[in-house]
Amino acid sequence: MQKKLASTMIFLLAFLFTMAQHAEDSIMFKRISDEIFMNGQAYSNLRILCKKIGPRLSGSAGAAKAVIETARMLKEAGADTVYLQPCMVPHWIRGDKEIGKAFLQNGKIMPLNIVALGNAVGTGISGLNANVIEIKSFKEMEEFGTEKIKGKIVFFNFRMDPRHINTFRAYGEAGVYRVNGPSKAAALGAAGVIVRTLSPEIDDLPHTGVTVYEEDKPKIPAVAISTLGAVELSKALNSGLVKSIYLKTTCKMLADKPSYNVVGEMRGSEFPDEIITVGGHLDSWDLAEGAHDDGTGCMQSIEVLRVFKALGIRPKRSIRAVMFMNEENGSRGGDAYAEIAKKEGKKFIMAMESDAGGFTPRGFGFTCDQTKSLKIMSWKNLFQPYGATEFTLGGGGADIGPLSELGTATIGFNPDSQRYMDLHHARTDVFESVSERELNLGAIVMSQMIYMVSQQGL
Amino acid sequence: MQKKLASTMIFLLAFLFTMAQHAEDSIMFKRISDEIFMNGQAYSNLRILCKKIGPRLSGSAGAAKAVIETARMLKEAGADTVYLQPCMVPHWIRGDKEIGKAFLQNGKIMPLNIVALGNAVGTGISGLNANVIEIKSFKEMEEFGTEKIKGKIVFFNFRMDPRHINTFRAYGEAGVYRVNGPSKAAALGAAGVIVRTLSPEIDDLPHTGVTVYEEDKPKIPAVAISTLGAVELSKALNSGLVKSIYLKTTCKMLADKPSYNVVGEMRGSEFPDEIITVGGHLDSWDLAEGAHDDGTGCMQSIEVLRVFKALGIRPKRSIRAVMFMNEENGSRGGDAYAEIAKKEGKKFIMAMESDAGGFTPRGFGFTCDQTKSLKIMSWKNLFQPYGATEFTLGGGGADIGPLSELGTATIGFNPDSQRYMDLHHARTDVFESVSERELNLGAIVMSQMIYMVSQQGL
Repeated sequence: MQKKLASTMIFLLAFLFTMAQHAEDSIMFKRISDEIFMNGQAYSNLRILCKKIGPRLSGSAGAAKAVIETARMLKEAGADTVYLQPCMVPHWIRGDKEIGKAFLQNGKIMPLNIVALGNAVGTGISGLNANVIEIKSFKEMEEFGTEKIKGKIVFFNFRMDPRHINTFRAYGEAGVYRVNGPSKAAALGAAGVIVRTLSPEIDDLPHTGVTVYEEDKPKIPAVAISTLGAVELSKALNSGLVKSIYLKTTCKMLADKPSYNVVGEMRGSEFPDEIITVGGHLDSWDLAEGAHDDGTGCMQSIEVLRVFKALGIRPKRSIRAVMFMNEENGSRGGDAYAEIAKKEGKKFIMAMESDAGGFTPRGFGFTCDQTKSLKIMSWKNLFQPYGATEFTLGGGGADIGPLSELGTATIGFNPDSQRYMDLHHARTDVFESVSERELNLGAIVMSQMIYMVSQQGL
Repeated sequence: MQKKLASTMIFLLAFLFTMAQHAEDSIMFKRISDEIFMNGQAYSNLRILCKKIGPRLSGSAGAAKAVIETARMLKEAGADTVYLQPCMVPHWIRGDKEIGKAFLQNGKIMPLNIVALGNAVGTGISGLNANVIEIKSFKEMEEFGTEKIKGKIVFFNFRMDPRHINTFRAYGEAGVYRVNGPSKAAALGAAGVIVRTLSPEIDDLPHTGVTVYEEDKPKIPAVAISTLGAVELSKALNSGLVKSIYLKTTCKMLADKPSYNVVGEMRGSEFPDEIITVGGHLDSWDLAEGAHDDGTGCMQSIEVLRVFKALGIRPKRSIRAVMFMNEENGSRGGDAYAEIAKKEGKKFIMAMESDAGGFTPRGFGFTCDQTKSLKIMSWKNLFQPYGATEFTLGGGGADIGPLSELGTATIGFNPDSQRYMDLHHARTDVFESVSERELNLGAIVMSQMIYMVSQQGL
C-alpha cells in the first residue's frame, strides 16, 4: 500500500509538473504571438526584399543584393553573429522575351503565351518551327514511340488535378512533366517541349520552374504555356487547325558564379553546440518578386531571431536563421550548408523550412524517429489557439533535406495551400499578394516551435 | 452469460453500423468535394454578381438587379421552386464624394481620407467646421463630459487590437465606436463624429459600415477615416497643429423601398416539412463589389443546391438557399424570413449562414441544445480532410438570428479570418480578392454539413 501511495504521488507530481510546464509554455506562446502581431518586422522586411530588390535568380544582381540586405536584417534582428557561406551557383539567364505562335490551316496565327523553363537551352535566334503532338502522359508518349515523336514539338497537356485538397499533391503529380518531360521527349527524338503551366486556375499566366536534363539525352528547348493557352491549343489541335508551331527562346546557361547562404546565429546559453536551423530560400525565379516563393520564408526565419531578442529569451540551444541560396534551380546552398555542417562536428538537432508560402498556418510535417515524433506531438495542443493544428508525419524542405545524413530532425512549416499554386513561379508572386497577418501568424507558430525545441531539446 | 453475449452483440452491431455509416458518409463527402472542385459554379457566378452588377446597397438599382440574377442562378442550380419574399428596406444614399480636411495652425490644410458611415445623416452642402477632440474610449468621453465635448467633432481613435487571433473579436471590440459612437457623442452635445476605420492594416483606405442612431438623441454626421489618416490626425492633434476640421457629406436616408429575399427550394423526399436554411446576404455596401461581403456566402449557398442536383442526391429534408436582403443596414430580410417562417407552421430545424468571407475553411460554430450539439460534434472527423476542424459552441449569423425564436439550430460557417478585415466594407472587396479554390472549399464543407443534416435530421 505504501508503495502504491508512493507511485501515485510520483504520478501525481509528474502530472502537476506537466500541467505547470504546459501553462508556462502557453504563456510564452502568447507573448511570442503578441510581440509579433504588435511589432513584427517580417512584412516591412518583405517589402524591402520585393520592392527594393525584386527578382533574385541565382547568379543575378538581385540575388547578390539580397545577400547583403538580409545580412543587415539578421544583424538588426539580433543575431549574435552573421556570416556568409560561399557556394558556386548555376547562372541561367532568360534572354529576350519568348515568342510562341501556332500557324493555322486558315492562314491565321495563334499567339502562344509562353515562358522558357528554368535551366532550359534556347532555340537560338532563328527559332524552332515544327509540327506539334499533344501528349497526356508519359505512358502515351512511350506508346507513340520515336516514329510519331521524332522531330516534333511535344506538348505535355497534363492538367493539375483540382480534386486534391492539398495543392502540393497535384503539383507533385503534374510536376514530373516539367521536370523530366524534356529529356524523356528528347529520348524519342523530339525537337522541343511545351508544358502546360502548373496551376489549378485557367488563366493566361505562364509559370516558369526548373527542368532537369538527363546527362545522356539531347538538350532540347522547353517552355511553359499558360493554362488557358494549353486549353486553346489543345482545342485547335483536336480540330486539325494547327499546321506548325514556332518557338523562339534565347535563354542559356552561363558559367557557375560564386554566391552565398546568409546565416544569422543566436548562441545557445546551455547547449551552444546543439544547432537548430530555421530557414527559407533567398533566390527566386526571375519573373516575379518571389514574395511567397520564398521571401516570406526568409523574412519569417529572421523574425524568429527578432522575437527571441525582443522578448529577452536567451535560447538554451543555438538557433541559426538561414537564407539558402539556389533552391530553385540547383539546391547548391542547401548542399553547401550540409557539407559545412558535417565538418563542424556540432549536433544539428532540428531544421525547419518555410517554403510553401506566407499563408495562414495549418501545421507542421516532420521527419524524424519515433521518440522525437512523440515529443513533438506532445506539444500539439499548445498550437491549437494559433490554428497550427495539423501535425503530420513526413515533412521538411528542399534546402534542409541534405541534413538528414546528420540525423537532423526536419520540420516543414505547412501553411494553407489553396492559393499557392495560382501564383507560384509566375509574375503575380508579388508583395501585394501577401497578407501581413497571415505572414505574421506563420512567423508566430514557427517561433513557437523553435522555442520548444530550443528549450526542451529533441 | 447469454445476456452479456447478447448485449455485446448489440454493441458490436451498433459499432459496425456506425463505422459503415461513417464510411458511406465519407464517400459522399468526397463526391461532393470532387464535383465542386471539378464543376463548381460559385466562382463564375460570383464574377457575374461582382462585375455585371457590382455594388448592391439596399434600395439601389444594383440590389434590384441582383434579385433577378440570383433567382436565375438558383433555378439553373436545380431548385424545385424559386420565389421572392417581399420586405421593405431602408434606402440610404451616399451622395457626393465626401470631403474632409484639417486646418492647421501653420496655414496649411491636411486632407482627410473619409467616407460617410452607412445610415448617417449628412452635414448639408455647407459642411461642418468645428474643433476636434480625440477620444480613446467611451469612458474617457464620459469623463470629459458635455463641457469638453459640446460643439466639437469627436474623433474616436480606437485601434483594432491586432493581438486577437480571430479578427472578428477585435472587430467586435472596436465596432461599438462606429455603431454607437455618434449617438453617445451627440448625447454630450458633439457636432459630428470621425471614427477610425475598422481594419488591422495601416493604410489609406477608409471602410464604411452601419451606424445606429438612438431615437432620442440628435442625429449628427458621422464618417470613417482611414487608419493611416487616423494615425496622422492623432499625431497632428498631439502636436497642437490642428485648428479645426471641416467635413462635408451629402448622404441621406430616403423613404423605405420594396425589396426581396430570394429563395430557392429543393423539396425533401421524406420530411418535406423539415426545413434547412442556408444563406448569405445579397446586399452589400455601395463602395465595392461586395465580393467577400457577402457575394461569396450567396454563391456558396446556391452551390449547395447545385451539388445536390449534380450528384443526384435527393435530400430527405427540404433545403432552402436564401439570399437575404439588407443585412448591412437594417436586417429587414432576415426579419421577414423569420416572420414568414412563423406563419408557415413548418419545422425550421437548422439554418446556416456564410457571412465571414470566402476564405479557406476553419470550421463551424453552432448554437443549439446539447443533444443537437453532440450530434453535430459526432460528425467532426468527417470534415478533417477538408480543413474544417474547429467545431465551436456559439455561432450563426445576423440573418438567421431571428429564427432562434422557432428553436432553429443556427450554424455559422467559419472561414479563416486573417484577411477579412483588411477589405471589409472597403473598395478593395472585389472579385479579384477571392481565391477560386478557397471559395470552393468553403462551398464544399457547407454542402457536406447540409448533407448530414438533410439525411440525418437534427
